[in-house]
Amino acid sequence: MKSYMVSRYASLDAYTPGEQPQDMEYIKLNTNESPFPPSPKVTAAISGEEIEKLKLYSDPEGKELRDAVAKYFGFKRENVLLGNGSDEILAFAFFAFCAGEECIFPDISYGFYPVYAQLVGANATEAPLDENFSVDVNDYIGASKTVIIANPNAPTGKALPLSDIEKIVASNPDNVVLIDEAYVDFGGESAISLVHKYENLIVCRTFSKSRSLAGARLGFAVASEGLIADMNRVKYSLNPYNINRLTLLAGKASIEDDEYFLKNVKQIIDNRKYTVSELEKRGFDVLPSSANFVFAKKNGKSGLDLYLELKKRGVLIRRFGKDRIKDYLRITIGTKTQMCKFFEKLDEII
Amino acid sequence: MKSYMVSRYASLDAYTPGEQPQDMEYIKLNTNESPFPPSPKVTAAISGEEIEKLKLYSDPEGKELRDAVAKYFGFKRENVLLGNGSDEILAFAFFAFCAGEECIFPDISYGFYPVYAQLVGANATEAPLDENFSVDVNDYIGASKTVIIANPNAPTGKALPLSDIEKIVASNPDNVVLIDEAYVDFGGESAISLVHKYENLIVCRTFSKSRSLAGARLGFAVASEGLIADMNRVKYSLNPYNINRLTLLAGKASIEDDEYFLKNVKQIIDNRKYTVSELEKRGFDVLPSSANFVFAKKNGKSGLDLYLELKKRGVLIRRFGKDRIKDYLRITIGTKTQMCKFFEKLDEII
Repeated sequence: MKSYMVSRYASLDAYTPGEQPQDMEYIKLNTNESPFPPSPKVTAAISGEEIEKLKLYSDPEGKELRDAVAKYFGFKRENVLLGNGSDEILAFAFFAFCAGEECIFPDISYGFYPVYAQLVGANATEAPLDENFSVDVNDYIGASKTVIIANPNAPTGKALPLSDIEKIVASNPDNVVLIDEAYVDFGGESAISLVHKYENLIVCRTFSKSRSLAGARLGFAVASEGLIADMNRVKYSLNPYNINRLTLLAGKASIEDDEYFLKNVKQIIDNRKYTVSELEKRGFDVLPSSANFVFAKKNGKSGLDLYLELKKRGVLIRRFGKDRIKDYLRITIGTKTQMCKFFEKLDEII
Repeated sequence: MKSYMVSRYASLDAYTPGEQPQDMEYIKLNTNESPFPPSPKVTAAISGEEIEKLKLYSDPEGKELRDAVAKYFGFKRENVLLGNGSDEILAFAFFAFCAGEECIFPDISYGFYPVYAQLVGANATEAPLDENFSVDVNDYIGASKTVIIANPNAPTGKALPLSDIEKIVASNPDNVVLIDEAYVDFGGESAISLVHKYENLIVCRTFSKSRSLAGARLGFAVASEGLIADMNRVKYSLNPYNINRLTLLAGKASIEDDEYFLKNVKQIIDNRKYTVSELEKRGFDVLPSSANFVFAKKNGKSGLDLYLELKKRGVLIRRFGKDRIKDYLRITIGTKTQMCKFFEKLDEII
């Protein structure tokens, strides 16, 4: 068959989502989902009456949910943008601020950044993590290009202190600095408060991890009104009705149930402590994690072998092909029961 | 505040969705939604158990729904692509086949086509409708550029016969022809069967109109495996988890309830006949419609005035600013009761 695709995109190196095999019941510790269901208030909000209203378009402005998010963080509706997952927020930002221009992000980070850079034709610099797998702040201070940093970073789980983030934001007044806080609720310091002070800062968040709504597809950005307006221009040129009605309701119900949210986050942090200590007992090197996953390797053990042996035993974790991290496993923190099973299977292998 | 947006997108002329005012209860005949709720099977499919599963990512491949759609139309899963609304399908296609290249679509058609053309940097030709507001087939035969045609067209409601569509597809073997069939269920001839024969044809559909799921955000394309793979490459570079879990379930339940679907479509067609006849009684010129809306004007009456007077009386319809159609009203076909109310208010005005 002949090729119809434009040459510009014919070699797009697309993102590979974590595997979702259906051949058996896995203990799924590979895509950083929450092991807990969404708040009971979410279930209550998705009523039969609301399902019938699916006949009507969702509010393209998402006003009620934006108001709820704005109130929660102490901002105005105009400081909040909703995305169909935080991936879509990243897409809007790459189009608005990076298309055909320069940007910089860590060489080991969320695998979607280089994909978006390629899609929008950005000239991307991938700055190496330092010898401790930390983001090297000096690479970003006065970088004079759009900065994208996940904090805590993935797949390492390591976080930068807020003081370092502020240095980066303050030293790049002519460029946008996007801080991707997908995992911040599990122990990082959020930069959201800095949005009051810096008009060049975007903080990007998701409901997929700490709020147990990965399958609802909801993310948001908090930024100055100007940057939100810029990203909105892309949104209204790409996908105006980007959030479905039930997800708008689910997001609002989740934001309004802080007690449930905080309880789950605490549980994950407790389970992470347990997981780290059990891994260390077994001779693993574990990077200090501020996320709902840990990144660990065992000297002398191949990451690929461990991954395959665990999969054979019904436990899915994630590993990556890049040479420097090829022997590391990224293990999502699940329930205590799931982590005990994980160790039971791990002990059969090592 | 300084501007951070890249110059390329600083002047993006974004799409304007139909208005959704919240200040009173309107009879909403402005965004071509269905007046009927989704199938009761949709409500049943969105169970409490499924809401709890929102903690897990949706299937990025949407396998079950793609299988259901493929089966319904007599294709394979590999011939089906899902979008977060058919808008997203259009976006994927514009990126894959039009970026930096030439495309052609009617000058009076879905307002999003020129927006996507601008977003992807396509050189777009807007071919004028003929004197009867029909798509002029000769403009597209052997056009040697990507062709995008809504059939039935919007906002006119007029449809091309399948034989004309086939001429366009057959005469452009080196270019993609995208037929946007958002409204085809209400009386058009679908080109889906031609996908078996032509590898350059994409047929794009939505669940928003005839399937009462505008608020769920779901569209799909049927095309050759090669074209679906091309659009998938864009999807996996833009938004891999584009459809949320509950919408995947809703779509499948809707496809599986053909009886309910056919009953609603028939009702809309009946109500359209009634609406056309009542409009003509009142001296309106009504274009022959194969859609769930009609496009009509009354000589000597300003379209803007009629729109504003109806809005004042709680009836929303849509009008457009382009000179040639500025006095036309696009009126969505609702329930019989809604249409009677519409005429009651209209009679107060004219």
